[in-house]
Amino acid sequence: MASKPFAIIAGVGPGTGASIARKFAKAYSVVLLARNPANFTPVVDEINANGGQATGISADLSDTNSVKSAFEKINEQYGGSTLAAAVFNSGGGFVRKPFLELTEEEFASGFESQGKGGFNFAQRTLPLLQKATGLQHPPTLIFTGATASLKGSASFSAFASGKFALRALAQSLAREFGPKGVHVSHVIIDGVIDIPRTKAWTFEHEDAKLDPAAIADSYWHLHTQPRTTWGFELDLRPYVEKW
Amino acid sequence: MASKPFAIIAGVGPGTGASIARKFAKAYSVVLLARNPANFTPVVDEINANGGQATGISADLSDTNSVKSAFEKINEQYGGSTLAAAVFNSGGGFVRKPFLELTEEEFASGFESQGKGGFNFAQRTLPLLQKATGLQHPPTLIFTGATASLKGSASFSAFASGKFALRALAQSLAREFGPKGVHVSHVIIDGVIDIPRTKAWTFEHEDAKLDPAAIADSYWHLHTQPRTTWGFELDLRPYVEKW
Amino acid sequence: MASKPFAIIAGVGPGTGASIARKFAKAYSVVLLARNPANFTPVVDEINANGGQATGISADLSDTNSVKSAFEKINEQYGGSTLAAAVFNSGGGFVRKPFLELTEEEFASGFESQGKGGFNFAQRTLPLLQKATGLQHPPTLIFTGATASLKGSASFSAFASGKFALRALAQSLAREFGPKGVHVSHVIIDGVIDIPRTKAWTFEHEDAKLDPAAIADSYWHLHTQPRTTWGFELDLRPYVEKW
Amino acid sequence: MASKPFAIIAGVGPGTGASIARKFAKAYSVVLLARNPANFTPVVDEINANGGQATGISADLSDTNSVKSAFEKINEQYGGSTLAAAVFNSGGGFVRKPFLELTEEEFASGFESQGKGGFNFAQRTLPLLQKATGLQHPPTLIFTGATASLKGSASFSAFASGKFALRALAQSLAREFGPKGVHVSHVIIDGVIDIPRTKAWTFEHEDAKLDPAAIADSYWHLHTQPRTTWGFELDLRPYVEKW
Repeated sequence: MASKPFAIIAGVGPGTGASIARKFAKAYSVVLLARNPANFTPVVDEINANGGQATGISADLSDTNSVKSAFEKINEQYGGSTLAAAVFNSGGGFVRKPFLELTEEEFASGFESQGKGGFNFAQRTLPLLQKATGLQHPPTLIFTGATASLKGSASFSAFASGKFALRALAQSLAREFGPKGVHVSHVIIDGVIDIPRTKAWTFEHEDAKLDPAAIADSYWHLHTQPRTTWGFELDLRPYVEKW
Repeated sequence: MASKPFAIIAGVGPGTGASIARKFAKAYSVVLLARNPANFTPVVDEINANGGQATGISADLSDTNSVKSAFEKINEQYGGSTLAAAVFNSGGGFVRKPFLELTEEEFASGFESQGKGGFNFAQRTLPLLQKATGLQHPPTLIFTGATASLKGSASFSAFASGKFALRALAQSLAREFGPKGVHVSHVIIDGVIDIPRTKAWTFEHEDAKLDPAAIADSYWHLHTQPRTTWGFELDLRPYVEKW
Repeated sequence: MASKPFAIIAGVGPGTGASIARKFAKAYSVVLLARNPANFTPVVDEINANGGQATGISADLSDTNSVKSAFEKINEQYGGSTLAAAVFNSGGGFVRKPFLELTEEEFASGFESQGKGGFNFAQRTLPLLQKATGLQHPPTLIFTGATASLKGSASFSAFASGKFALRALAQSLAREFGPKGVHVSHVIIDGVIDIPRTKAWTFEHEDAKLDPAAIADSYWHLHTQPRTTWGFELDLRPYVEKW
Repeated sequence: MASKPFAIIAGVGPGTGASIARKFAKAYSVVLLARNPANFTPVVDEINANGGQATGISADLSDTNSVKSAFEKINEQYGGSTLAAAVFNSGGGFVRKPFLELTEEEFASGFESQGKGGFNFAQRTLPLLQKATGLQHPPTLIFTGATASLKGSASFSAFASGKFALRALAQSLAREFGPKGVHVSHVIIDGVIDIPRTKAWTFEHEDAKLDPAAIADSYWHLHTQPRTTWGFELDLRPYVEKW
């Protein structure tokens, strides 16, 4: 297919993932991954309607076979193109429960989504990013973290375990693949994001939620950094957030 | 069985686990868990020969059925006793490989051993620790961390993901169970431990390796802290270690 | 004077400070502060020659009277304008010596430059930033950190004490003034910057030094973030940097 | 004077410092330093009455001349003895104020007490600790940190700057003097200590305050660690503390 470079955004719902896809679609073809096509279809359609080039593929990143199949489809469509950026934005594995009420499966779901999901995504995208040439910006792999990436709060052991594991993965990859020319970053989203699901959550201040479009701008900024001057970790939060 | 309180040490080999078992055996009956009986048998025999009370049980903490079976045996033997301390000291899941050479199974082995293993151990021991009464020291759950608990180095993504996840779990449990009277701690072992397996590793300085008996003394110190003054995290390293 | 908003860049030499001044001068009038006019004069001239608006003022930020005098001059010239951004970029207080060879004055020089310098700069700029109105981007105060902001290495006690203190100040101000609408950030420069003074330092890779212009781009990006989505801390390093 | 080794405790009031002095007086002669003799006299008398050996010396650790004079007195009395341990426990420099209400002097008081005080204390004690021989435990230098060592909260910029600087100093000294045989540690006291001044502060739980005697036990434990297995940082808090 196209000679235009492409980007892969994994974990696309109506919030951050969609905004990142929109932002990167201004420069690249974009592939959107989500388990449920209902999550990416509206964004794919919107991007294509606005002159961009988007493809949605259903994939469960914690499932090897599903990942394999998704990247075969990607290879069919984008095999001749260069992968410029890959964003892992999965929000899966969120469980909030007193520890003794957690099943082993619930506890492991944090790692399944974040750790294993991040692993599978990185294993598929890093070989493509490493061989990228002729790009305006260094090839980039960004992982989305959360408050739970830094702090294991009571009742958050499952999700925090997953997000801690993902941060370990991101650090390890940045140290291994940085010198090989791939920019690996980890962004900590510390607060509530303003998405359809959180519309009803009201705060004292009306603009107390993170704006997905502004998050996407920061991801894009990280992507555009030259390799002399790479940011690894950036924490984003609303101005009124307690931290 | 006995009215003497007991302690459970999980992950017992000829190094730290054995030393912790010896130390805690001075005050308590001890149960030693390891996958391979060859790992705990010499220590169990030694403790029993020296007037202590030790039992070894084969268990794979990442396997629910194995854990279930092990704690049924513990309940049979120690059902009438009080659990005073539980130490999770598993060293499993250590893999050091360039990222793209890792299989999904190898990557997940860090979490299986450390994350899921820690989860299973905590789920079985916390209900016992919570109901402990009449102890001289607060009931205590200690997790063993490593350099990889704080830093995801290149080629360490599997082990660091597991150790990061374990630290998240420890933090979460400390915050949930501290106010309920259980002391949860996380000790970071930053350096090479002086055990049979590392005997051949020589350094410029002859005492450049951590002493398992001294590690055990610090675990015991944490256990003896009153609940007004609990340590959560302690980092231990040899005096010549670079950090 | 002008109705154009202005920015103040403190700690301007031929490196990062100059690049930040050039970048912010594309949108604002800029005031450059440095102890030695030789440090800002070439940049001031360059900006003015290229259609920008720059003023250089000699100031020692660790000296209250010098700061007072500098901000009186700023008030004379920019009293009618809005302060849009302030950047504290002082590199002073760098001493590298075995601890027992340090004089008290040398040790304190880290805090004098970084801690007290940051304090004086913040006390003068925050009242102006707080009353800013009509700006395109939220008023912003950015502090420049270093590797020594996170790690006290051997022989770096003086500089690290100063940089740790500056980070404490930045955190405290972010928490106090964020909810009041001022964006406070802290950028950690982790590596050697490519400036005249480091030209002779060669590394295995030729692009192993941070690019001041790229650093400036990241400062500008932080400035443009909307208050729903503010970054507090960003670490920047060359792709080959060990960390 | 005596051939018994001695310890110096700086920053002795009726709380932690007194308890540390009592604890170390069981093994060593102790020198207690405080600005106001009223702070150490009761403890000195108590220790001497109970068969220990204690001397109180008035000293302001942020004042070079005062420190010089105090250590001349120490040298006169203990010149023939071995310094086994030194503890810096100053609580000075605590100011809690909105940032714009701080004077430069108030802001700097955090660094004066903690940073410069720690520097002066370390410069005087490290040469003595380095030449210590024949001790049962490695010579030890311990610094007392606080919540503000890790977090710059709103209105705490002065104290947090001082405590961050002290932590930088402690890290730097641990890395420089560890390989030379001196154990340098930093203990983070995260919570309210149960001392006369806080008697009136009541909490939901009656034992919600840190016990100075238990803090002292942990300092002593750190002191007894062999150099193969040194702890650098330990955080202590009450079981009900939020963190």
